[in-house]
Amino acid sequence: MPKIVEYIPRHHELGHTFGGRTPVMRVAPGSVLRVATEDRFGGLVRGVDDHPSQVCQVPQLNPVSGPFYVAGAEPGDTLALHLVSITPARDHGFAGTCSHGGASVPAHTARTRDIPQATPASPPTMEERVWRYDIDMAAGTVRYAARRCDHVVDLPLAPTLGTVGVAPAAGEVRLSLAADAHGGSLDTPELKAGATLYLPVFVDGALFALGGGHARHGHGELCGAGVEIPTHTVLVVELVKGTGIPGPRLESDTHLMSIGSAGCLEDAVRTSRNDLVRWTAELTGLDMLDAWQLVSQAADAPVGGAGVANHTALVAMATSYLPTDLAVFDGIHQRLRSIAAEL
Amino acid sequence: MPKIVEYIPRHHELGHTFGGRTPVMRVAPGSVLRVATEDRFGGLVRGVDDHPSQVCQVPQLNPVSGPFYVAGAEPGDTLALHLVSITPARDHGFAGTCSHGGASVPAHTARTRDIPQATPASPPTMEERVWRYDIDMAAGTVRYAARRCDHVVDLPLAPTLGTVGVAPAAGEVRLSLAADAHGGSLDTPELKAGATLYLPVFVDGALFALGGGHARHGHGELCGAGVEIPTHTVLVVELVKGTGIPGPRLESDTHLMSIGSAGCLEDAVRTSRNDLVRWTAELTGLDMLDAWQLVSQAADAPVGGAGVANHTALVAMATSYLPTDLAVFDGIHQRLRSIAAEL
Amino acid sequence: MPKIVEYIPRHHELGHTFGGRTPVMRVAPGSVLRVATEDRFGGLVRGVDDHPSQVCQVPQLNPVSGPFYVAGAEPGDTLALHLVSITPARDHGFAGTCSHGGASVPAHTARTRDIPQATPASPPTMEERVWRYDIDMAAGTVRYAARRCDHVVDLPLAPTLGTVGVAPAAGEVRLSLAADAHGGSLDTPELKAGATLYLPVFVDGALFALGGGHARHGHGELCGAGVEIPTHTVLVVELVKGTGIPGPRLESDTHLMSIGSAGCLEDAVRTSRNDLVRWTAELTGLDMLDAWQLVSQAADAPVGGAGVANHTALVAMATSYLPTDLAVFDGIHQRLRSIAAEL
Amino acid sequence: MPKIVEYIPRHHELGHTFGGRTPVMRVAPGSVLRVATEDRFGGLVRGVDDHPSQVCQVPQLNPVSGPFYVAGAEPGDTLALHLVSITPARDHGFAGTCSHGGASVPAHTARTRDIPQATPASPPTMEERVWRYDIDMAAGTVRYAARRCDHVVDLPLAPTLGTVGVAPAAGEVRLSLAADAHGGSLDTPELKAGATLYLPVFVDGALFALGGGHARHGHGELCGAGVEIPTHTVLVVELVKGTGIPGPRLESDTHLMSIGSAGCLEDAVRTSRNDLVRWTAELTGLDMLDAWQLVSQAADAPVGGAGVANHTALVAMATSYLPTDLAVFDGIHQRLRSIAAEL
Repeated sequence: MPKIVEYIPRHHELGHTFGGRTPVMRVAPGSVLRVATEDRFGGLVRGVDDHPSQVCQVPQLNPVSGPFYVAGAEPGDTLALHLVSITPARDHGFAGTCSHGGASVPAHTARTRDIPQATPASPPTMEERVWRYDIDMAAGTVRYAARRCDHVVDLPLAPTLGTVGVAPAAGEVRLSLAADAHGGSLDTPELKAGATLYLPVFVDGALFALGGGHARHGHGELCGAGVEIPTHTVLVVELVKGTGIPGPRLESDTHLMSIGSAGCLEDAVRTSRNDLVRWTAELTGLDMLDAWQLVSQAADAPVGGAGVANHTALVAMATSYLPTDLAVFDGIHQRLRSIAAEL
Repeated sequence: MPKIVEYIPRHHELGHTFGGRTPVMRVAPGSVLRVATEDRFGGLVRGVDDHPSQVCQVPQLNPVSGPFYVAGAEPGDTLALHLVSITPARDHGFAGTCSHGGASVPAHTARTRDIPQATPASPPTMEERVWRYDIDMAAGTVRYAARRCDHVVDLPLAPTLGTVGVAPAAGEVRLSLAADAHGGSLDTPELKAGATLYLPVFVDGALFALGGGHARHGHGELCGAGVEIPTHTVLVVELVKGTGIPGPRLESDTHLMSIGSAGCLEDAVRTSRNDLVRWTAELTGLDMLDAWQLVSQAADAPVGGAGVANHTALVAMATSYLPTDLAVFDGIHQRLRSIAAEL
Repeated sequence: MPKIVEYIPRHHELGHTFGGRTPVMRVAPGSVLRVATEDRFGGLVRGVDDHPSQVCQVPQLNPVSGPFYVAGAEPGDTLALHLVSITPARDHGFAGTCSHGGASVPAHTARTRDIPQATPASPPTMEERVWRYDIDMAAGTVRYAARRCDHVVDLPLAPTLGTVGVAPAAGEVRLSLAADAHGGSLDTPELKAGATLYLPVFVDGALFALGGGHARHGHGELCGAGVEIPTHTVLVVELVKGTGIPGPRLESDTHLMSIGSAGCLEDAVRTSRNDLVRWTAELTGLDMLDAWQLVSQAADAPVGGAGVANHTALVAMATSYLPTDLAVFDGIHQRLRSIAAEL
Repeated sequence: MPKIVEYIPRHHELGHTFGGRTPVMRVAPGSVLRVATEDRFGGLVRGVDDHPSQVCQVPQLNPVSGPFYVAGAEPGDTLALHLVSITPARDHGFAGTCSHGGASVPAHTARTRDIPQATPASPPTMEERVWRYDIDMAAGTVRYAARRCDHVVDLPLAPTLGTVGVAPAAGEVRLSLAADAHGGSLDTPELKAGATLYLPVFVDGALFALGGGHARHGHGELCGAGVEIPTHTVLVVELVKGTGIPGPRLESDTHLMSIGSAGCLEDAVRTSRNDLVRWTAELTGLDMLDAWQLVSQAADAPVGGAGVANHTALVAMATSYLPTDLAVFDGIHQRLRSIAAEL
């Protein structure tokens, strides 16, 4: 059974970017990590009267743990991160309105730049309100409680990591709130225990980091946040040498998934679909049009996150629709599953 | 048991618009209809060598059966159409590349206006290719067969109606290929047997029509078409007097769903979400922000169709998350379910 | 000198759509028309206390005069409308905030469907405010006067027609507030005296109509309206047989211009650019890439209107950059200029 | 007369990002700089047979000279860069198709991430073609010559800087090909001699850099590039202490201009308009709605660049429409004009 390496960041070790930071630890491919992640608010929202705009310092949001230097990782490789478990590190989470983000916020305000005062076209900042969600680990529920009336409902606990990425290409440094080919604030419900995330490697060591845990969140992250929690996340790190991918991909026991992020939702959707078509063609030997047709009739396409700086879309193909002898990256997902099962 | 009224259109009775047409039949609220619908290609694609661009006459695509005049329907009412069954009227369907549409096609070509020749930015028309899907009703499958190799896979049969709508407001007449507040080419996998579709009534009699059946289609209708089939569709027609809705909504046994259509995917997504938030608030008594938060953490949001002239998004809320005594439109969906069960 | 045919609509003759209406007059190619047009508010805003939301009945906005049946016009022809003069029919105009439109209004509210109440994401309707602009014909100015302070400034009088179009293809009927391949609410500052507008003919007689005059308006029609006025507009009607165009084009003494309209600004921009590249290639014999490069370095591209239902973009090429012997449609613009000069 | 400080970068001093780099020089406010800038292709395209995809190494495009550390500049200040002159450093420039960008390229390919092979939806890479433009400084012209026929036309020489920016906020490092609140690849025809560019200061010293000169380019930068040239650029550097701005603004002798950049053209347009409304309100004392109305009727709004990673929009207000005693930043533009006149 592999040894589990534990990493609990001290406060000053938390970062707010992908790229531009010194690694906190060196890990070998095959390592199993147990990483503590802080919540999106840096732990500074402690009750419903703690408004993020007052207790947090934008854009010092969404801290990530890492980066981790993966021994042997070089540009052009693919990093595989298998999520073994995502455990809430607290018995409650928070969500809030945020004037600077969220998919339903008028697009022109969904910017990291501060907007000092309302214009006719950027109407009065919406009321800032915070919701506390109590988590019942035994029951597997997350309790929504309305703030202005007494409606209460238990939603299924469904922990995810909102933010996972590597150092970007070409020396760029991006906020952890952004998403792009390097990953970042992907905010998809599919980034959960049991899934393997593939990321392109752009720099030596890959320099991956993670954070932004959610006890659950709806599709599309309507309010710009899930039920934000700190986590203890266990993952297996693996490396595929010499096989690059253009952006984030996911594999579960049942599906292959491509993720696209862009400043415009349509571009995000197109990027994810084009990638899944290309991936399907490569795996099956179908020509591009036949692959496109198969994806057209077979794909699932939930809208992913729609973050502060980027929109994210995910599209999925059931592996049961593909040839039975198919092994993505020589069956790495199944192999990581086995490792996870032994832990 | 209610009598079933049968309607089989003669060829000249098929229409290609919502609005601008004389009703083919008058029906009373509570009626059960069995309607034959033609496929998107007007039945003119009969094999994989029948290219739509040659055998069809754009924009004479996507014929609809109707319109039906609903006795007593007036502007400001809501029409409820409960789908009892959607049965393929043929043992096979067709899908094809279409140069004039599809969500992955570069946006500037996704237009009804013909594009006489390629520009640098609207590159060579993609190869036109048609796929035939054999339907096995007994097995409940739809068979994909690649055209350029021998990959074959059976996908689950999951019939939907792609196109349902009423006559638009203000005297507009819209192609059946378009989608907007009046419905139209909604192309969502949720428009299936067991669902109740709510549509706003804009003109006396509502004048609804339907067509565009699919044996199945993936989320997002990547190629601009599902597995296109003619159908025999059974539906119950009901009317909610004096209660308007802003656009199409759906109810299933488990979910409330809002549909938004717009020329831009982001607008479609926003429209659907805003409507579901508003609907949730109205039903539950939650204030707008509390409703918004609940939808944020609880909603499912598959990307819907992305048709020739419009994009469509759907967002869904499980009714199990809402107060237990909740009855949408006085429980009309459950009542229509009972009628359907007796048929 | 050609005789000028006068048309002053009676109130019930005004329409609010392109398509779906009986012609008000038959005109021969070569005719000169003098048409009275009503203002966008149907003349119902008579002072700054007349709020459109109360005195007008949405979507009964933007009345158009016509349609005119052009003798001999058939689908596939091109209609040429040369604007001789646009004269304000009143010594003042009005502009106002409008909750249902305007380019700076958050996209999800820019819809014709009413939005019955605010959502968190469609914040409180902005204050409705009306501005009166006094027109000084002799001085050639339009006077802006602030409503909440005493700032006053005279802007140049620059009359335009906001809305010109023909009956759409395929039996569609579109609100006069929309814009598409048939024209409609184009709202470009270039639709002014001295310009020739080319429109595709989709139905026998073309059935063109016009309205939506402005004393002036800025680029982009930020607030969803210009300085709205009734006009007396003189135009020469001409027909180019057998030569179709994909959408609206403009010619001035110095420029060729292509207009694109779509539900998304990027699509509108792409459509206009692609059309200008194609047009340039056809006129000059340049291949598509050479034409594209020339347009890239030579074009002017002001953002056009961004109306209720559609965005419009215009891109222009100076004819001085094209071969000197070039004659668009056999020099029809110059010929119409001469006719206008004789009036 | 102020002394002119000359800066000619050695090759290894050129950068490809804003942020993340050590200053090449320290300058005091009030300094006059003469900076040599390299062309977008790093000087590696030397003839029409040098295809950028082969001679350049994406994303090592668009080198910038700098960054310059401005003494005393602190976060929250505004940097003012007055462009005295932009002189082509070579008698010819180049432009080319580029598969990775350009406003007319289908949106899903307009990405920095490489696209390894065509998909049905990202059709065959367009032919790569390079155009050489000869510059006649005496005549003030730039000669377009078609590649596939003998059409030649002289366009007016109109030099601009395509790329000017500071180090971004929050530790981000962005490619010089991107644009955002920190400036970057703005690609607007208004960034020319005689204009003053205002940029927010996010880090100590501001760390501004410049490059991407054009002999001219059309509005919208259709092909993703202007007529790319190296330049000798003379500019005056000034600092406004304690007065922040949300993003790039420009002032000319006649206009105030706001620039918005975003991943989506509509967001870029909204950002620029909202900023100009707010700026107008602040300068004039008009309330927001009165300012909005004035901008609505008075603004010019050419579409700006549409770069690889971002779209840029610019909107302009003639200062003649504003109160006569108005002095932006205490008349800094006029003062810098005077300094420039003495050089």
